[in-house]
Amino acid sequence: MLGRLAGGHLLLHRNAAVMWFILVPETDAVDLLDLSEAQLNQSLADCRAVSTYLKTERQYPKVNFGALGNLVPQLHLHIVGRTPDDACWPQPVWGNLPEGPAYTDDELNTFRTHLIEHCGLRPAD
Amino acid sequence: MLGRLAGGHLLLHRNAAVMWFILVPETDAVDLLDLSEAQLNQSLADCRAVSTYLKTERQYPKVNFGALGNLVPQLHLHIVGRTPDDACWPQPVWGNLPEGPAYTDDELNTFRTHLIEHCGLRPAD
Repeated sequence: MLGRLAGGHLLLHRNAAVMWFILVPETDAVDLLDLSEAQLNQSLADCRAVSTYLKTERQYPKVNFGALGNLVPQLHLHIVGRTPDDACWPQPVWGNLPEGPAYTDDELNTFRTHLIEHCGLRPAD
Repeated sequence: MLGRLAGGHLLLHRNAAVMWFILVPETDAVDLLDLSEAQLNQSLADCRAVSTYLKTERQYPKVNFGALGNLVPQLHLHIVGRTPDDACWPQPVWGNLPEGPAYTDDELNTFRTHLIEHCGLRPAD
């Protein structure tokens, strides 16, 4: 758990093999496209801020986006930095990610500092 | 190619093993989250109309949504009806879809008729 954005909580996948963020909007809807127009636009604005961070500050040329939820019913949105030399390119990350290292505490603190500045991250309640 | 929605062309995957639509927004952006706010909201509104059709008329309990583009650079958005008894549940469809039948002409005509009514589909230019 990194903290909160305007529309929900922002998580970071533990596996540092790819830079993989997960936004959990505050909703009972099970699918992204079931959200109301206002909720959908807010969630996508949050995701866009994270994507812009990945592209501008972390130099990712591609960002994959997905909302699946076949295994975990709570709605969650995947925002994943991709490069042609990453651990599972060109496959999707789901089901194809090899084991990788965890982030260090310093790396996690850097993420929080960056995301406060770039995406309006706030501490979780 | 099924036709046009407000923000782009709507395609149907040839493999009828799952009901898999692909929206191709009219843009040079390579990633969904690079779209302007107005383009993003229009594309998502189109996708939401297709998702609502899948859920209400086709009785799909889940709709997976994704924007990857690791293999095909033209931006395209996946809207996929999913059920726990489909051909690759609970895996994502990408990379996991077995060979399946093609739709018949009658089935394709039914799709067009439904999507004109439910999603404002128009003929392609």
